[in-house]
Amino acid sequence: MCDQLAFASQRKPYQHMDLRHHVRDIPDYPKPGILFRDITPLLAHPEALTASVEEMAKPFLDQKIDVVAAAEARGFIFGTPLAMRLNAGFVPIRKPGKLPFDLHSFAYELEYGSDELQIHVDGIKPGQRVLIVDDLLATGGTVEACLRLLEKCDAEIVGCSFLIHLVALGGEARLSPYHVHSVLEYGGDDAEDELSIQNRPPGPSV
Amino acid sequence: MCDQLAFASQRKPYQHMDLRHHVRDIPDYPKPGILFRDITPLLAHPEALTASVEEMAKPFLDQKIDVVAAAEARGFIFGTPLAMRLNAGFVPIRKPGKLPFDLHSFAYELEYGSDELQIHVDGIKPGQRVLIVDDLLATGGTVEACLRLLEKCDAEIVGCSFLIHLVALGGEARLSPYHVHSVLEYGGDDAEDELSIQNRPPGPSV
Repeated sequence: MCDQLAFASQRKPYQHMDLRHHVRDIPDYPKPGILFRDITPLLAHPEALTASVEEMAKPFLDQKIDVVAAAEARGFIFGTPLAMRLNAGFVPIRKPGKLPFDLHSFAYELEYGSDELQIHVDGIKPGQRVLIVDDLLATGGTVEACLRLLEKCDAEIVGCSFLIHLVALGGEARLSPYHVHSVLEYGGDDAEDELSIQNRPPGPSV
Repeated sequence: MCDQLAFASQRKPYQHMDLRHHVRDIPDYPKPGILFRDITPLLAHPEALTASVEEMAKPFLDQKIDVVAAAEARGFIFGTPLAMRLNAGFVPIRKPGKLPFDLHSFAYELEYGSDELQIHVDGIKPGQRVLIVDDLLATGGTVEACLRLLEKCDAEIVGCSFLIHLVALGGEARLSPYHVHSVLEYGGDDAEDELSIQNRPPGPSV
């Protein structure tokens, strides 16, 4: 059997599926009034995990991506699978004290306090085509910081890919002019109020 | 072209390669006397990233792994690709305040202070066959904590898979009786002294 087919036969063919079914809604986490979209049941489901990576990669398959960049820690979950799916390298964006080599840094404001992200100066070469990946786009602060770091590297930023986009939190506007792709949208015009408390007790929906 | 071949043709066939060449040695990080094995050049190299996942998965391809578990943040880098390679689910092990559902916790001592890791109570079902993954085995404290959490879930722990094993730090003994697999060993009998200072200035070796 030719090498590619042998290599492929270990991976299940990808079947389109309703990924929303595998996301667990947990009310009042991390604080009252917040409806938390828990993706751990999706990650624990092999076909849903594969389908998520496929859907996050789809618009970029023919975009000649050189590097997938992602910020710790939840960005790492999808960062390397997407890099491998796109035959690209993976470059981690980390918090201070984690990367050992020469760095670019970017500090940014949070709702309470501030935060800082860093990237190796040689992680991305000028002109390389880069896709930023994260599990979820909320207010956009983390990904905006990633964009600033990539601009410092003179990267050609092709776009951003998310599994989940919490539309009501307005993060997309902060990522302009870059292309934003997401697989699952919540709180858009389908009337689910992102911040409404749902009176359904948390429980395993796996 | 059959679906599997079409699916495979997007992925480059895996070629065996000298992965050690892609690991950058950085002396005196995070403190004087420590030789830091920086895997970011390896991650940024598409073929080296794919080859690493293949080598980390190899002994477990026919072990019917149900779940790959990994601790944040560097464990996530290899956790999901290995889960996908083994057609398994992925279960994240996280620091306090990150997981929204009911939890198992395990606190453990560090060289200075202590730390705690958590897993969802429903992430792994009793009897599921689980592989623990991390980028590097050093003193073994983090992975030992992961093992304790998996034992609380009544998991069937098949083994542990690392890209790098720093043999001189003796972490493997803490993981007994579980099978430990690693792709690259440093500081074993090949005389490289893990804690020796190499007087080579850090520099991009990408």
